Amino acid sequence: SSQAASTIGGNAAMNAGGPHTLAYGVTANHVLGVRLLLANGQVAELGGPAPDMPGYDLTSLVVGSEATLGVIGEVTVRLLPRPEAVRTMVAVFDSVERCAACVGAIIRTGVIPAALEMMDNPTIRAVEAATSAGYPLDAGAVLLIELEGLVEAVEVGLESAIATCTESGSSEIRVATTEEERAKLWKARKEAGGAYGRLAPNYYVMDGVAPRNALPAVLAAVERISAEYNLQAATLLHAGDGNIHPALLFDSEEPGAIERVRAAGAAILQVCLDHGGSLTGEHGIGVEKLDVVRQMFTDDDLEIMDRVRRVFDPDRRCNPGKLFPTPGRCIELQGRALLEAHW
Amino acid sequence: SSQAASTIGGNAAMNAGGPHTLAYGVTANHVLGVRLLLANGQVAELGGPAPDMPGYDLTSLVVGSEATLGVIGEVTVRLLPRPEAVRTMVAVFDSVERCAACVGAIIRTGVIPAALEMMDNPTIRAVEAATSAGYPLDAGAVLLIELEGLVEAVEVGLESAIATCTESGSSEIRVATTEEERAKLWKARKEAGGAYGRLAPNYYVMDGVAPRNALPAVLAAVERISAEYNLQAATLLHAGDGNIHPALLFDSEEPGAIERVRAAGAAILQVCLDHGGSLTGEHGIGVEKLDVVRQMFTDDDLEIMDRVRRVFDPDRRCNPGKLFPTPGRCIELQGRALLEAHW
Repeated sequence: SSQAASTIGGNAAMNAGGPHTLAYGVTANHVLGVRLLLANGQVAELGGPAPDMPGYDLTSLVVGSEATLGVIGEVTVRLLPRPEAVRTMVAVFDSVERCAACVGAIIRTGVIPAALEMMDNPTIRAVEAATSAGYPLDAGAVLLIELEGLVEAVEVGLESAIATCTESGSSEIRVATTEEERAKLWKARKEAGGAYGRLAPNYYVMDGVAPRNALPAVLAAVERISAEYNLQAATLLHAGDGNIHPALLFDSEEPGAIERVRAAGAAILQVCLDHGGSLTGEHGIGVEKLDVVRQMFTDDDLEIMDRVRRVFDPDRRCNPGKLFPTPGRCIELQGRALLEAHW
Repeated sequence: SSQAASTIGGNAAMNAGGPHTLAYGVTANHVLGVRLLLANGQVAELGGPAPDMPGYDLTSLVVGSEATLGVIGEVTVRLLPRPEAVRTMVAVFDSVERCAACVGAIIRTGVIPAALEMMDNPTIRAVEAATSAGYPLDAGAVLLIELEGLVEAVEVGLESAIATCTESGSSEIRVATTEEERAKLWKARKEAGGAYGRLAPNYYVMDGVAPRNALPAVLAAVERISAEYNLQAATLLHAGDGNIHPALLFDSEEPGAIERVRAAGAAILQVCLDHGGSLTGEHGIGVEKLDVVRQMFTDDDLEIMDRVRRVFDPDRRCNPGKLFPTPGRCIELQGRALLEAHW
């Protein structure tokens, strides 16, 4: 979603995902090798173009390490052919619950769309105000579904997806008939982050992951938690891989707002974990989630990762204060200072 | 190919591949988490069911580590739906060169078969003697091609593959029309290892990898090297992913035969490396390739991997003497003893 701004090195360091992760996987699934500049000035060549390298898979270790093992200077990626055909459709639902239930229903038919994105009503209103793409303002939620592949397979998949959406209670289905229509639907979806500025002065986006079949329950919990903390949420999801992005809307000028938002965010992530999910789908831990990382990892987990880190960087000089709650006071303070600056 | 004998823990420890790796990837592409018993008696839970775990990807580190980091006690795998349709065909060629050139030609059309296996004439003769599957005894080489997916996509892919094989000079194409025919073709292919026993008292299988487009050159080199060392080779390939398995036939009773076979094998692997490939596609380093592992890794590479190993197992007690040429004399001797026992 950040394709206009992101770099390949950053994509690899964060193991980035995105709207098409459902069919194509995350960045790690496409990286064959990296050139890594180590803290001691040495350059390590890890992996390489051969698809089946022997030895330890240090490439996968570096991908997603949030630059704590070294600086990625070069990435060898696996390329895929462009798909022969692309079809894009929108299914409109009157409720978030019905829309969320449809996500699992589509996958259960065996059809794996290239993208299966979901937007709730506040998100639709924000992106429509910004882009006038044509999403219905009165919808409870919509699914943006894209199928890619051979012409025949895409047509079969499209028919199947339409049938499943209808059976799941979709009130309206629109299939993009031109590349312009398709581009408009995607532009709206990809500009949601900016468009949220129309709803509130500030927002705090969560990046939780939950199993697809738990999405109806998790989204109901997001609504409940938002109400509990007197907040409004606008939610979009990479629904196909269970990656939820609720944006908690607030005004940082309002006393106590940041604290409420952080508490609500932590409660939402806890719900994801309770359903067997993850704290982050694509944006990583960084400094923001240093406080919650212990909900997912034991001290032993963190200790073993820290020891792996020190194989590459004995003095923890690469991207200090990120990813792991490190013991150093100086680093801890730096982490907190950055966290405050984030607001 | 060892599905009748292999275990899931062994598959993960070796990052096993096989005939369907072309479409589905190796074991690592399907492992979400492992439970690892460490040398100190602790149990580490790495990864988990969430598809996008934060932190270092220690799961990928363990998969393919040849049991040198700990003992895998439990594996969490990603399941895929069974494909709707499967079609299997055999394309017959009068020469290895033409057959090998067709492999890259198929992939270049954008069709990715589930399996794209190749057998040369000595392999065909061995498997026919053992299974009478119906492969033509006078063929220079054959491709066994399997397509999986939605009915329509498989039919389109099959037509495209037939056209490409014909354009590449295939003299005959047979499409399996029943599940029995398909099973027979695969049974022959999967029993090649045992069937080689009909060609010679002993054989030594290489497990090199080369880029697909280099296969004609690499297979010509296998023939040249075999002749040079006065050996006959029978070759089968997971051709789609460039993984070659030349079996060098010999009689261990014959003085000097083992030395000739080892020298020829090292020369074949060197050709794979010269083409940008790898020493092993799926069978790993073990003890057998301890001598050649330095052709692929620098001392720095090995040092960093050894330090990662010692994070998990400070005394190198897990599967000692495998995968890495370790400095300890005792371990070196143990490795050599095992290598001799291998014959």
